[in-house]
Amino acid sequence: MDAKIGVVTISDRAYAGIYDDESGPAVIDTLNQIISSEWIPITKLIPDEKNEIENTLIQLIDAENCCLVITTGGTGPSSRDVTPEATENVCERMMPGYGELMRAISLEYVPTAVLSRQTAGLRGNSLILNLPGSPKAIHQTLIPLFESIPACIELMDGPFIDTNSEIVVAFRPNHR
Amino acid sequence: MDAKIGVVTISDRAYAGIYDDESGPAVIDTLNQIISSEWIPITKLIPDEKNEIENTLIQLIDAENCCLVITTGGTGPSSRDVTPEATENVCERMMPGYGELMRAISLEYVPTAVLSRQTAGLRGNSLILNLPGSPKAIHQTLIPLFESIPACIELMDGPFIDTNSEIVVAFRPNHR
Amino acid sequence: MDAKIGVVTISDRAYAGIYDDESGPAVIDTLNQIISSEWIPITKLIPDEKNEIENTLIQLIDAENCCLVITTGGTGPSSRDVTPEATENVCERMMPGYGELMRAISLEYVPTAVLSRQTAGLRGNSLILNLPGSPKAIHQTLIPLFESIPACIELMDGPFIDTNSEIVVAFRPNHR
Repeated sequence: MDAKIGVVTISDRAYAGIYDDESGPAVIDTLNQIISSEWIPITKLIPDEKNEIENTLIQLIDAENCCLVITTGGTGPSSRDVTPEATENVCERMMPGYGELMRAISLEYVPTAVLSRQTAGLRGNSLILNLPGSPKAIHQTLIPLFESIPACIELMDGPFIDTNSEIVVAFRPNHR
Repeated sequence: MDAKIGVVTISDRAYAGIYDDESGPAVIDTLNQIISSEWIPITKLIPDEKNEIENTLIQLIDAENCCLVITTGGTGPSSRDVTPEATENVCERMMPGYGELMRAISLEYVPTAVLSRQTAGLRGNSLILNLPGSPKAIHQTLIPLFESIPACIELMDGPFIDTNSEIVVAFRPNHR
Repeated sequence: MDAKIGVVTISDRAYAGIYDDESGPAVIDTLNQIISSEWIPITKLIPDEKNEIENTLIQLIDAENCCLVITTGGTGPSSRDVTPEATENVCERMMPGYGELMRAISLEYVPTAVLSRQTAGLRGNSLILNLPGSPKAIHQTLIPLFESIPACIELMDGPFIDTNSEIVVAFRPNHR
């Protein structure tokens, strides 16, 4: 079973064509560096509309069977930023550690990382993860997060994801 | 447009006159050290009553147009401490990073900082921030938080707040 | 007044007798190392059923008068792991600092600590604390947490808990 991974760019301006989406491609590029096993990307580009974000996340998990859905954008304090709220609305259980860890990592680069409202959670057997919108911050956070993401997906009976060990080593604890 | 900042002391005993409010003045004093641009303080002293806290926060934002409201007190585990719950009730979106960061900062001083239930969130275009009650802890947390607070307020189309760079430098990322 | 402390092992497999409960005894053993004053343990072993977890927590606090209830197990991302949700359902106020601190401590040992969804909260005058399931992780997190737990219980008018200072020193701030 190859891993299907949804990558959702959430940006009014990229959706309207005011600028190119650089965030989604940065996620795909970083995943290509990280993952050495087979995987299938499913990409979406949508505006900062809560309903549309929720419907996209639901479709990628319930219909497309993605084991992991990564969003990028919409996590700041601007009035249009509602990605964390949409994520929480479609998750049955939350994973507070990922938001904490991403803010801690990004705080080593910029003090405004504290403004990031990123969260993560579980819907069925899938992990939804909010990443920041900046390509640089995507790269800085997504690589260390893959130390734990493959184990998370396996704990939910998802596919085995292998990583390029020169980029990041996936840690797999021995559960009894 | 000068920045209006609400400062709300939440304390049954200070409200009853059992002791003087030292927390509100500590917030004002620290803001005076930090902020070099014009700003207008609006101060309140109220008891640990959830409804009263909620009404005060709503009034300072919806009627007084404060871009920032700082509370002090009522964030511990005592049965009367309900400031975080009142804050969450009036916010549309939460800012989990500030609570995490304040606890991380305060943990370097006292292990009981973990008991602090401080949170932060957004109502309309305003930031509400719970600070601890102790004047020393106010000083220790409020200064480093101002590295990011001016950027947060600008992202919500609020007024420009300048800081005294010998106290704290406000970081302003280049958003495209 | 001796401190009553509830210790709840939450595990389908230990409950079914597939393996022995090692987590509950690890909590008791660690508490015996930590606490030098008199205390009374009340232990429970239950499956990963949300209703049963909620009922057990309520009974230990409302009927048994435990000032502290420690759970172990059920905090990961597996579909049966619902301890944090049950905890939140029975708490009136949450204590976000303990989950953050436990994840930060455990991250120094294993990167998958970020997957732990542990939380803590208050019901009446009692503290509920989710610990991980692994005996090693219980020991690693519970000892440093006791720097602040006795102060938390005293702030809620609970019993005085003394610690063995060679294991951990309980910090008691001077509140005015």
